[in-house]
Amino acid sequence: MEIAVCLPLSEAQEARLRRSAGSATVRRCAPDDLGDASVVFGNPTPEAIAANRALRWLQLESVGFGEYLDLDWSRASGPVQVTNLAGFFADPVAETALAGILALKRGIDRLCALRSDGTWIGDPIRSELGLLGGSKTVLFGRGAINGRLAELLAPFRCTVTAFGRDFAEDRLDAALEQADVVVATVPHTAATAGLFGAARLARMKRSAIFCNLGRGSLVDEEALARALRSGALAGAVIDVTRAEPLPPDHAFWTTPNTILTQHSGGGTADETDRKIDRFLNNFTRFRDGAPLEGLVDFTRGY
Amino acid sequence: MEIAVCLPLSEAQEARLRRSAGSATVRRCAPDDLGDASVVFGNPTPEAIAANRALRWLQLESVGFGEYLDLDWSRASGPVQVTNLAGFFADPVAETALAGILALKRGIDRLCALRSDGTWIGDPIRSELGLLGGSKTVLFGRGAINGRLAELLAPFRCTVTAFGRDFAEDRLDAALEQADVVVATVPHTAATAGLFGAARLARMKRSAIFCNLGRGSLVDEEALARALRSGALAGAVIDVTRAEPLPPDHAFWTTPNTILTQHSGGGTADETDRKIDRFLNNFTRFRDGAPLEGLVDFTRGY
Repeated sequence: MEIAVCLPLSEAQEARLRRSAGSATVRRCAPDDLGDASVVFGNPTPEAIAANRALRWLQLESVGFGEYLDLDWSRASGPVQVTNLAGFFADPVAETALAGILALKRGIDRLCALRSDGTWIGDPIRSELGLLGGSKTVLFGRGAINGRLAELLAPFRCTVTAFGRDFAEDRLDAALEQADVVVATVPHTAATAGLFGAARLARMKRSAIFCNLGRGSLVDEEALARALRSGALAGAVIDVTRAEPLPPDHAFWTTPNTILTQHSGGGTADETDRKIDRFLNNFTRFRDGAPLEGLVDFTRGY
Repeated sequence: MEIAVCLPLSEAQEARLRRSAGSATVRRCAPDDLGDASVVFGNPTPEAIAANRALRWLQLESVGFGEYLDLDWSRASGPVQVTNLAGFFADPVAETALAGILALKRGIDRLCALRSDGTWIGDPIRSELGLLGGSKTVLFGRGAINGRLAELLAPFRCTVTAFGRDFAEDRLDAALEQADVVVATVPHTAATAGLFGAARLARMKRSAIFCNLGRGSLVDEEALARALRSGALAGAVIDVTRAEPLPPDHAFWTTPNTILTQHSGGGTADETDRKIDRFLNNFTRFRDGAPLEGLVDFTRGY
């Protein structure tokens, strides 16, 4: 059995994989050249997956898998299982969401800029600060990230209204009109793409903060930038964008009250080690013919 | 009865005070010239308090009162009551503390600087990020701020070790050596001044974050700056400093991984209105001869 690994590893991490792989061969490979490995760990290009006719199991190093939705997974060698990291990023992304919201409420972004300018503003900034405590929050997405965020919000005595994929648009819109903070964590699907367009963003209060930590395709980015510029929205926490890296002329580089976290929300210093833990756990199951963790259902889109 | 008011008020706020003062006269005054008002609302200079021989009640607009410790409060006209805003700032300061800690853990300060530079770093920042969840925290100060912070930390599954004014130095030092996050909220007293000197700071782990939201006198600022520069400490959240405004050549303008919140931690857009609420509530008690809220005990120093 051959395991093709296409995520960046240190030598120690690669050595650990080899030790744990038993008789299987571990081969590092480029994301666009998998050969005919029956097991792949990482996020290769869709073309490389199509070209591999021996694939039996793909362990992604992400939760999202939108780029693979159109692939034909049938193989003469047997069924292909695809697993993702569902739930893996809940703690870090929820902490980044809360960090971003609190930064806007407590002026951390402005105070960091003042420090870098060497400017003491002192008391006058106090009148610009707000509290998260007691806010009306809308969590759009019922997955692990918003589940964890709801736990972190509990002591803030926020009212939390959560919507999953069975949401009714009129109920969502009614909740958005009341919300102080909106946090979206939904994947890219046909149902979510473009869902937060200009008209929906315009329903929110001028004092509201909008956060997107799911996929950039959810939002009309030009409309969001206009709302931030005009003061129609008080702030935004943006982890994901339609284009990553964000193009140099993109509005989000300069919109006011914007925390742009560059898709780092899921990051932690030990994340690759934790990804290897997850792979090895599934690898044991794969060899034993046991059900894999995080099996992707392509018919649902997440 | 004359009420001298020496905090900045809008016209609407002043009108509200006059309406609620009944037959008492409300006079706005400079902090260094109270005349002989029997009631004072705000933080006047110690000299102006000494010069006012008719004072019966001083409602401070702060929690701290270190600048008044040496005053002689005896008056021929009767005893002087001094009240502070104990507990008033617990919610905002606790939110600022958590905002600062999460900013350091999740890289919000670095990401804000990258945005202002127009630099996309993306994935490489992920390996610099950490989680607050599961941290060992030491809360130094058992007042309202750290009480509220302990509530906010609860869902992070942190271990919390709290110390009040009866702390034992050896137990504090033992806890500091284990701590991932240390949050000090203690007032300036003879017992706290200089307590966090170079030797005590050196006990902390290189990965630890130190936060001071009490009074600047607690800390040897040069030692803290050296620790941040050398990497002996991973970060600091600094709301209070020995000199405010911070002098232009102060190290805290340029130390790495430093969130400098310029004594804004207690600030909210509605704080003056809430201070007036508190004053008027105490004013009713004062006229009725009832016990005042937030009575200061100068023998304790807080």
